[in-house]
Amino acid sequence: MKLEYKLVKKSNNARLGEFKYNGKLYETPMFMPVGTNATVKTLSPEELKDAGAGIILANTYHLWLRPGEDVVKKAGGLHKFMNYDGPILTDSGGFQVFSLAKPKDITDEGVHFKNHLNGDSLLLTPEKSIDIQMKLGSDIIMSFDECVKWPSTHDYLEKSIKRTLDWAKRGKEVFNSKDQMLFGIVQGGEYEDLRKECALKLVEMDFDGYSIGGTSVGEDKPTMYKMVEYSTKYLPEDKLRYLMGVGDPIDLIENVMRGVDLFDCVSPTRLARHGHAYTKNGKINIKNNKYKEDFTSIEEGCNCYACKNYTKAYIRHLIVAGETFGARLLSIHNITFLTNLMKEIRENIKNDSLEEFRDKFILDYYGENYEYK
Amino acid sequence: MKLEYKLVKKSNNARLGEFKYNGKLYETPMFMPVGTNATVKTLSPEELKDAGAGIILANTYHLWLRPGEDVVKKAGGLHKFMNYDGPILTDSGGFQVFSLAKPKDITDEGVHFKNHLNGDSLLLTPEKSIDIQMKLGSDIIMSFDECVKWPSTHDYLEKSIKRTLDWAKRGKEVFNSKDQMLFGIVQGGEYEDLRKECALKLVEMDFDGYSIGGTSVGEDKPTMYKMVEYSTKYLPEDKLRYLMGVGDPIDLIENVMRGVDLFDCVSPTRLARHGHAYTKNGKINIKNNKYKEDFTSIEEGCNCYACKNYTKAYIRHLIVAGETFGARLLSIHNITFLTNLMKEIRENIKNDSLEEFRDKFILDYYGENYEYK
Repeated sequence: MKLEYKLVKKSNNARLGEFKYNGKLYETPMFMPVGTNATVKTLSPEELKDAGAGIILANTYHLWLRPGEDVVKKAGGLHKFMNYDGPILTDSGGFQVFSLAKPKDITDEGVHFKNHLNGDSLLLTPEKSIDIQMKLGSDIIMSFDECVKWPSTHDYLEKSIKRTLDWAKRGKEVFNSKDQMLFGIVQGGEYEDLRKECALKLVEMDFDGYSIGGTSVGEDKPTMYKMVEYSTKYLPEDKLRYLMGVGDPIDLIENVMRGVDLFDCVSPTRLARHGHAYTKNGKINIKNNKYKEDFTSIEEGCNCYACKNYTKAYIRHLIVAGETFGARLLSIHNITFLTNLMKEIRENIKNDSLEEFRDKFILDYYGENYEYK
Repeated sequence: MKLEYKLVKKSNNARLGEFKYNGKLYETPMFMPVGTNATVKTLSPEELKDAGAGIILANTYHLWLRPGEDVVKKAGGLHKFMNYDGPILTDSGGFQVFSLAKPKDITDEGVHFKNHLNGDSLLLTPEKSIDIQMKLGSDIIMSFDECVKWPSTHDYLEKSIKRTLDWAKRGKEVFNSKDQMLFGIVQGGEYEDLRKECALKLVEMDFDGYSIGGTSVGEDKPTMYKMVEYSTKYLPEDKLRYLMGVGDPIDLIENVMRGVDLFDCVSPTRLARHGHAYTKNGKINIKNNKYKEDFTSIEEGCNCYACKNYTKAYIRHLIVAGETFGARLLSIHNITFLTNLMKEIRENIKNDSLEEFRDKFILDYYGENYEYK
């Protein structure tokens, strides 16, 4: 069944929302862990749920190449394939193919590129992307858009959003699934006129939800926040808004305050594999010598499996020794940290206290000299 | 508390036994998974227990170097450090240091070798090995013995067992823990006179249990079985016997029939990382193309978490994509396979039907042309 979003409350521009899925109620704003290859690295579906995950992501590009969308379809779709009964969102594959393609290989038809696994020449088009995602059977699917470098000129972006809009339209024309939601993607860089034009034209096409693209590609925080503001401003209140690829804790708070409902990022699991853990007082590197005999949990009061059962000294040992159970414990902690943060954000929307919460969070996490406040 | 073994029944030379630990009853014969760095690769303690694990192993050499036995001691011992409340056995470190030392570096004092992590010169002696193991706080600890290559001459082995016996004595002299069991190790290659001499002299020293060393170093199966027979024959019935480094399913059965109670091997987890799974009909390689669209479990009727929730196609995908969740699922399956096999072995000791069970196992696992029957 198609997931139905309901806006519950607004506090300034921050939005509290909810939807039902498989009989379970989920609340937004929400952080979505990334499971590139139909697995959130090192974790089981049970661990993800225990860590507070709701929607999770899977990557169209990776699954298209391996094991192939037809295999996933024959398995009964992504949910059955990977044994996850919560909601799943897929990206369009655009982000990966744009990083593999040369400028001359980006045409109005689609993007020509070489398969990173075997060098085969491939073409990804808006139609193909939607077709793959329909076969994967995710609950929320993305339009194929032009992923633009930052910075790009107004001139380039003006042409680029025309292509993105054309591709959104072509994707929508072949989309014929009753159980999935199709999102349009707002591009336009840091230019309000282009973000506005792109957003309004997408809204005209009436998508099930809207994503904000073109962020998290090297721009500074004030620029990212502008890009988001210039997008959400022109989006309808009754539809979900998803900010792609953003997961830095402060960015979750700042962008919720700018009207975003959904976020995804590989950072909690990638940081984990490198031995980093989020805490309210900032990120720590567990490999640091000072944790060698630290027999306390990563963060006092944290309710995650890692913090309830293991010490920094043990997790440090595992990471230093290259044991994957270490990455697994830190992944559980980091995802729990972000899902707990989203829970606090939702509480503070309910209490109309998000700004105070943000200020307190910054003070604890960054100290007194944070520059982007 | 010290673990107390009780022999419950014999069926020919096969032995059914039991011991209590932390209020829980454990039965032998038993297979013990290996957790080199105080973690059974990719798995949590809870998963190990669900897979039927009882005693698990940890490696003295690795933990001595990293994080260091003093860190583990300060953590409250291995059980607290790694959050495992079942019994733990440690090896002596001998196997690793012998593989790193040149012949001239093996002296009566001990073994000189270079730390594989940083090249530092180190010396491991019988006293040091016992000291480290006492600090680690494992429940069953091993004497430091000379690990001999196969084949070795009668002449060399005759001198070697004198050293092994001297080292066993020196280790026993410094061993002063009331909560741990200390095992002596029978060496002597494939020579009955040497195995007998070594076993009888160890028994005279009165260890808490006995290990059989010098197997699983390249010898053929009939030679291994002889080595075991020549050892168990001279060991007391009321003490545990542990065959080190053996984990091939048929070897578990054959050596239980020769009087062994405990086994360990890295194979279930190492095979898992390479995509191999045990089944009653032999090992399978999950990477094989034929499993690409095989939406059945690894083994029908298997009660493990992997088989209850995932298909061969999904696990194949994970292994091919290099995702550790694949190794984790296969590790769970492979350990469960071996602990289930041990359970069947125990049932067949109870029913005096182990030989028939062995014959049926071989037929299913290897087919009709198995050569070592």
